[in-house]
Amino acid sequence: MAKPLILVTNDDGITAPGLRALVNYMKELGDVVVVAPDSPQSGMGHAITLDNTLYSQKMQVDFDNGALEEYSCSGTPADCVKLALQELLERKPDICVSGINHGSNSSINVIYSGTMSAAIEAGIEGVPAIGFSLCDYSWEANFVPCGPYIQKIVRESLENGIPNGVVLNVNVPKTEDNGINGIKVCRQARANWKEKFDKRTNPMGKDYYWLTGEFELLDHGEDTDEWALSQGYISLVPTQFDLTAYHAIQQLNTWDL
Amino acid sequence: MAKPLILVTNDDGITAPGLRALVNYMKELGDVVVVAPDSPQSGMGHAITLDNTLYSQKMQVDFDNGALEEYSCSGTPADCVKLALQELLERKPDICVSGINHGSNSSINVIYSGTMSAAIEAGIEGVPAIGFSLCDYSWEANFVPCGPYIQKIVRESLENGIPNGVVLNVNVPKTEDNGINGIKVCRQARANWKEKFDKRTNPMGKDYYWLTGEFELLDHGEDTDEWALSQGYISLVPTQFDLTAYHAIQQLNTWDL
Repeated sequence: MAKPLILVTNDDGITAPGLRALVNYMKELGDVVVVAPDSPQSGMGHAITLDNTLYSQKMQVDFDNGALEEYSCSGTPADCVKLALQELLERKPDICVSGINHGSNSSINVIYSGTMSAAIEAGIEGVPAIGFSLCDYSWEANFVPCGPYIQKIVRESLENGIPNGVVLNVNVPKTEDNGINGIKVCRQARANWKEKFDKRTNPMGKDYYWLTGEFELLDHGEDTDEWALSQGYISLVPTQFDLTAYHAIQQLNTWDL
Repeated sequence: MAKPLILVTNDDGITAPGLRALVNYMKELGDVVVVAPDSPQSGMGHAITLDNTLYSQKMQVDFDNGALEEYSCSGTPADCVKLALQELLERKPDICVSGINHGSNSSINVIYSGTMSAAIEAGIEGVPAIGFSLCDYSWEANFVPCGPYIQKIVRESLENGIPNGVVLNVNVPKTEDNGINGIKVCRQARANWKEKFDKRTNPMGKDYYWLTGEFELLDHGEDTDEWALSQGYISLVPTQFDLTAYHAIQQLNTWDL
């Protein structure tokens, strides 16, 4: 049987340690091709490049440290997946994995996440897809403890198939070695970012802002991703791109429209 | 009773005819403040500006043609809403309306939509919100026929309250005057864009791509937004930012994780 073809992408860029770790874990499971942004794309949400040119470059790969083929792309994570599926890959991949993100994409962060937008783009195009994130923003984050868990989730996904219209959002708690308690299937916790704009004045006298914020958890349910992470578990949230709020349709039909 | 405070934003930029039309419709319903991008931001999805500075400029407003206050912002649609709520508005608005977009945001387009990302950002922050789009990409699109319908939807939203965690995605068919048949509450149709990358070579000899595509409708249900639009109705889809695919949780719990 042919090895599965695994497309690896991310939003931190092709040189990010999290992507390099994911490539190494995936090489034990199948044939790996990387198509990833040439520069960091965090917070890009599901942006795509409509009014600008897209460049893609085939990288020289030293196979000891890389995939079968690697391409960098000047676009967003969603662009990378579109370009990979349409132009760069010889056949449809068996799975697309995105990450490992340097930082959390749990709870409401999924909405802003470039990592998840890549996975969701693959899902929309009918490719089983998973986004992986480690709750540690450091470039020197330790991706070793999560390796076997990530391999397990990918193996199970290849074996069982991810349900149609569903993409997996996997977040790994920041722990010391052997500190992960297991994997929990969860729902997305309700939360919000309380923005704080740091207002400054540039050397030309013009005001500008930096966007900063504090995470505000509004949900203490023990079936949520935030709870699982707080207890040292990896959270796995099935995520969908049908955004219809079905429960609200009946109520809206009572309006005088 | 105080007039409602209405925040108007969009993704086509503060000078777009669709936004100017929306401002005019909203001025009949309340006090209007505009915070909108200083340049077009289509296809931005839910991008936010994390690693760059944000500029905002208060505009000179001729009230005959404008709102009470207007601000342009160098960021994305989601940035505009964050900045408006946190820094620019004196109180929390009663509603946020985004648009009128020049082009459809029905079906899977909601995922890529800057218009809807602004509305969703407001929804996340607890502000009732609606995105409006006209299925006509032209800068000279005719926004007159949809005016009374948009006012009706906003009035009903202010009166009844939009359900918690729900944001409305409203799309208006392209029609001649009097050609709109009414408003239908719908679900998001399943669809996809079949990408076509137009590959070219720049004057320096380097290959690049333009992203183009064809809309592929995968769903002919008569309860969908695409069906309503095809029949000359305005589609109204309740949209949520809890992306959890609840129906898949049980199945994933049978995996060997």
